[in-house]
Amino acid sequence: MSMSGGRGTAERLVVIGGDAAGMSAASQARRMRGPDELEIVAFERGRFTSFSACGIPYWVGGDVPERERLIARSPEEHRERDIDLRMRTEVTEIDVAGQRVRARDVDSGAGSWTPYDKLVIATGARPIRPDMPGADAPGVHGVQTLDDGQALLDSLARTRGRRAVVVGAGYIGVEMAEALVNRGYEVTVVNRGKEPMATLDPDMGRLVRRAMSGMGITMVDDAEVTKVFTGEDGRVRAVATQDAEYSADVVVLGIGVRPETSLARTAGLPLGAHGGLLTDLAMRVRGHENIWAGGDCVEVLDLVSGQERHIALGTHANKHGQVIGMNVGGGYATFPGVVGTAVSKVCALEIARTGLREKDARRAGLQYETVTIESTSRAGYYPGASLMTVKMLAERRTGRLLGVQIVGGEGAAKRVDIAAVALTARMTVEEMTALDLGYAPPFSPVWDPVLVAARKAAAKVRAGAR
Amino acid sequence: MSMSGGRGTAERLVVIGGDAAGMSAASQARRMRGPDELEIVAFERGRFTSFSACGIPYWVGGDVPERERLIARSPEEHRERDIDLRMRTEVTEIDVAGQRVRARDVDSGAGSWTPYDKLVIATGARPIRPDMPGADAPGVHGVQTLDDGQALLDSLARTRGRRAVVVGAGYIGVEMAEALVNRGYEVTVVNRGKEPMATLDPDMGRLVRRAMSGMGITMVDDAEVTKVFTGEDGRVRAVATQDAEYSADVVVLGIGVRPETSLARTAGLPLGAHGGLLTDLAMRVRGHENIWAGGDCVEVLDLVSGQERHIALGTHANKHGQVIGMNVGGGYATFPGVVGTAVSKVCALEIARTGLREKDARRAGLQYETVTIESTSRAGYYPGASLMTVKMLAERRTGRLLGVQIVGGEGAAKRVDIAAVALTARMTVEEMTALDLGYAPPFSPVWDPVLVAARKAAAKVRAGAR
Repeated sequence: MSMSGGRGTAERLVVIGGDAAGMSAASQARRMRGPDELEIVAFERGRFTSFSACGIPYWVGGDVPERERLIARSPEEHRERDIDLRMRTEVTEIDVAGQRVRARDVDSGAGSWTPYDKLVIATGARPIRPDMPGADAPGVHGVQTLDDGQALLDSLARTRGRRAVVVGAGYIGVEMAEALVNRGYEVTVVNRGKEPMATLDPDMGRLVRRAMSGMGITMVDDAEVTKVFTGEDGRVRAVATQDAEYSADVVVLGIGVRPETSLARTAGLPLGAHGGLLTDLAMRVRGHENIWAGGDCVEVLDLVSGQERHIALGTHANKHGQVIGMNVGGGYATFPGVVGTAVSKVCALEIARTGLREKDARRAGLQYETVTIESTSRAGYYPGASLMTVKMLAERRTGRLLGVQIVGGEGAAKRVDIAAVALTARMTVEEMTALDLGYAPPFSPVWDPVLVAARKAAAKVRAGAR
Repeated sequence: MSMSGGRGTAERLVVIGGDAAGMSAASQARRMRGPDELEIVAFERGRFTSFSACGIPYWVGGDVPERERLIARSPEEHRERDIDLRMRTEVTEIDVAGQRVRARDVDSGAGSWTPYDKLVIATGARPIRPDMPGADAPGVHGVQTLDDGQALLDSLARTRGRRAVVVGAGYIGVEMAEALVNRGYEVTVVNRGKEPMATLDPDMGRLVRRAMSGMGITMVDDAEVTKVFTGEDGRVRAVATQDAEYSADVVVLGIGVRPETSLARTAGLPLGAHGGLLTDLAMRVRGHENIWAGGDCVEVLDLVSGQERHIALGTHANKHGQVIGMNVGGGYATFPGVVGTAVSKVCALEIARTGLREKDARRAGLQYETVTIESTSRAGYYPGASLMTVKMLAERRTGRLLGVQIVGGEGAAKRVDIAAVALTARMTVEEMTALDLGYAPPFSPVWDPVLVAARKAAAKVRAGAR
């Protein structure tokens, strides 16, 4: 191991960002190298570390009683592990040539340079804020950080009204809509597309719409919020789309996130088409021997399409951090990529997807077959069996599995893992028909729904090959 | 296609056995070939076709209200599909050289020969009945067929007493014990091993014991029933083990099944070490061009150990039937083998296994690492998260996944499918650490329990490789 500053002096690792990727990297590096070998300095501009952003909707909705439950590890706990964690300290510049970062105390404004031997960039993502009048008015909330969640809860506590508008019908939008219904709000979701959950094909999204309507949520499709109106108190009072106006005591923005890579961009580090940092298999920033990046600020390889994507998801961030920590610590680990698995729920309806949608397959220039089947989560005769719809895409000539979407009752969401593993192993749908999946009446029909879909897809591929 | 009996005459397919494998084969063959091309004659010695034997414990326990719910397709429904189904007709001889079977009407005793062009043997399995005095007494029940289940229910209705002894603590034993508890019985399970569920390693079986004890079930270990005592009415009144005696108003035998291959044996067809028929990939009986076999009467290839096994499970039987029907109908399909996946539950405790146990790995001459981890079914902060224990075996030098056992609350059982697919794809535990599994707080911690186990196993393999 090469040491900077001469024999006996520890190397210094600097981590930018105190959430999942950054602190996982720091913790794993610490497990591999003691403080005598590796000094670790981490900068976090916010007030929290290692929190579950994915849990915010459940905290807002009341399923999770308090904010602290969402924090996996507090600043103090990190410090006990010999990580020099500087909270409310924002890195404002990366000097790649000089191997140093400039950080600024958010409260005092004081800034200084910190040299590094190794650098981890884990700056996360920032919510997309629509560029329109009133977007920054009180009562309009993003839900990316715990501070955002707290601000939303405070805002809910302050308003008397009970009308909420959620902008966007992706994971965050849908989960926040449910959370607000649980809080007793009349919820309107303004959706740019024709169906909610654009990460599904529209025919599957339609099933999600049905569940949302069933909860009393008003769905406004093909619409964009163009303006936010404020009342005399300056707070939001309504939003306008191109066609209509909707009263709103609170507005939640759930239109997605972008990689937070302004620092990296300024430093001249390589960014991809989606604005995320580009790394190699070991999560090292391309072309930079001693800089790693992970979490919501990087692009990842989609193993199915072979293209880079940006996916903000805690589970990837944790894996990135783990891999970076191993590599920083002198070991070797890789993050080969993703297959695009995501799960969620609306009320009792579970929603899952992995791999390519039809749109993605077309965009990748693939010819494909698609099948959709209905089955049940348990043997039909077993009490509590719920309906499950499985859509499967297979490449036309090879029969290779391309993607699976599942919407249904209990047991639907995690069934997508079968397809996630099969995609990783590049299985054909024909091979999938023989999978030895768990069967017992309380857990599956004798043909698991995924097998039913695989059989039907395999038959289509066979028929097409004739 | 070769035709017997000259141009224009249909071939005849004879199927022995009217349950999952036989009738799936017949139905699939019929879908591929109409009655003008293929005549299908099926013999079933019992009163039911295509029933779910796996559902019997839930019918006995009262979760499934009536027998008919367990029947996927009745004799009439099969006949409507142009299958000449002969119920209560037992095949007593296969004349391989003469291409014919002799069948006997169970009620009248009348017998006759039926020629075949193609033959499917799907004779199932028979429960092992202990060879001891009183084993055939009224009140002692197997639970293999719907008739068995009905006999047990009738027997329960007839007895006043409320004490039941279950012999065996495998899937059937454990499920029947729960069923009898649900019926209000005081249940004693007599188990040959030290822990219930010998398909798990004993350390995991211990978790099942705890759940059974929690339900008030008395567990008698290291014990075999050596004698059944009958009362003045001739019915069972108690059983004896080598050490003790247990009062019993009803006794349920759950000590496993053997392939029902006496017909095949007499006909000189090839049987394996476990007494099951041996087939090729296409489920054709080895060395016999026009005879197929599937379901509980065959041995299957274990893809992990490379050895033949006997596994009686409806999901395999259905797949076999499907494959046979495709091949009989002139297509081509294969059943590559199994990885040994099985799931079950006791009360709210879910139980799952796939691949090799420690015992199997040793027997196969493999060196292995083993890890056991505890995690939760959902994010720890999400309501309803339940504990889950995952044990994972990996080959020591290669890191190849060898097996997984999971015991835990809701969501534990079907998680084993992740490992089932990984085993099929011959993944290493290192490769598994990068699997893109579904994550959202209601469905998984940020590291799915299977990933936690894979990480720990990969670390052990790495450490061992140094």
